[in-house]
Amino acid sequence: MPSFNLELLLPPWIQEFSADNGRILHTDNDRMNFVIELSRQNIIHKTGGPFGAAVFERLSGRLLAVGVNLVIHSNCSHNHAEMIALAIAQHRIERYTLYGHDIPAYELVTSTEPCTMCFGAVIWSGITRLVCGAYSFDAEHVGFDEGPKPENWIEELEKRGIEVITGVHRTEARSILLQYIEEGGIVYNSRSIQ
Amino acid sequence: MPSFNLELLLPPWIQEFSADNGRILHTDNDRMNFVIELSRQNIIHKTGGPFGAAVFERLSGRLLAVGVNLVIHSNCSHNHAEMIALAIAQHRIERYTLYGHDIPAYELVTSTEPCTMCFGAVIWSGITRLVCGAYSFDAEHVGFDEGPKPENWIEELEKRGIEVITGVHRTEARSILLQYIEEGGIVYNSRSIQ
Repeated sequence: MPSFNLELLLPPWIQEFSADNGRILHTDNDRMNFVIELSRQNIIHKTGGPFGAAVFERLSGRLLAVGVNLVIHSNCSHNHAEMIALAIAQHRIERYTLYGHDIPAYELVTSTEPCTMCFGAVIWSGITRLVCGAYSFDAEHVGFDEGPKPENWIEELEKRGIEVITGVHRTEARSILLQYIEEGGIVYNSRSIQ
Repeated sequence: MPSFNLELLLPPWIQEFSADNGRILHTDNDRMNFVIELSRQNIIHKTGGPFGAAVFERLSGRLLAVGVNLVIHSNCSHNHAEMIALAIAQHRIERYTLYGHDIPAYELVTSTEPCTMCFGAVIWSGITRLVCGAYSFDAEHVGFDEGPKPENWIEELEKRGIEVITGVHRTEARSILLQYIEEGGIVYNSRSIQ
């Protein structure tokens, strides 16, 4: 590899779902359906784990960025759906934070509650709202390790000005996790050996 | 931007410190001095925050990857020193985990204890040892927010098979944090406005 260039290539099918389409989704339900569909497509195309996320302008509902789990595909354990959506969002607005008086307020919508890493990343990202589908419990129930988040993680986000909504379309979000397991998808955890 | 290509360009001065030089550092002290020097160079070159990290083969001491804080430079709040060193390390060995029976054991050496995000990332990374310089307290003392790590974060890592050593060359590591502040460096936190 060239030592000084770390490149993340997203799978081509994501193009259809990208912000270039000028998509606007007005409600939490619509936005959650969208990221659940991302997670489903990621399984269908066998490009990664059963997780999808997207960054929207809170008020207008304009889509800014999408992400899916690409850990295995990209050989990088950082590449959870939330991390990718946030990184692309910041890249698009050319700032290291999505929070500012002269830009719209942004939110992250994710098909499953964040793991410890993504929880930490959410805090630095500058979003002001987090909308989740399946619970951490649902991910853990099928074998994913969410890591040692503080028990009061929602409160910790709210203390920092980030509103949290969870359990939106939980049943549908959880069904993608189950589908992934039933189809023999790899569950990558901290003690996994490649 | 091309929608499907997220690129991280490291500052040119890092070349001198990269794994391409085949550097071998045998002791914790040597490895810590090396990452402290990375953090110092990052200030001198004004390419980011006062943090450096590197991944080494535990036994041989061979350097695999380096990282420095590039949040502002790269417009991405994920780009802490630890995140970059781990991502480059996995990219170099072409695996999504640094843990495996057929590869050497790896460790992450970092000039300051990890924030919440990096703590979570360490768990998924596959390293089996974490060596830290300055304490989280030191970073917070000069204004950096480390985020809501669980109080027993060291125990949580050790439970997952990751040995933790901290306070190595703490005074020197902390002096870089102080130098950064004295020189008017930007302290980026969750409520910062760009």
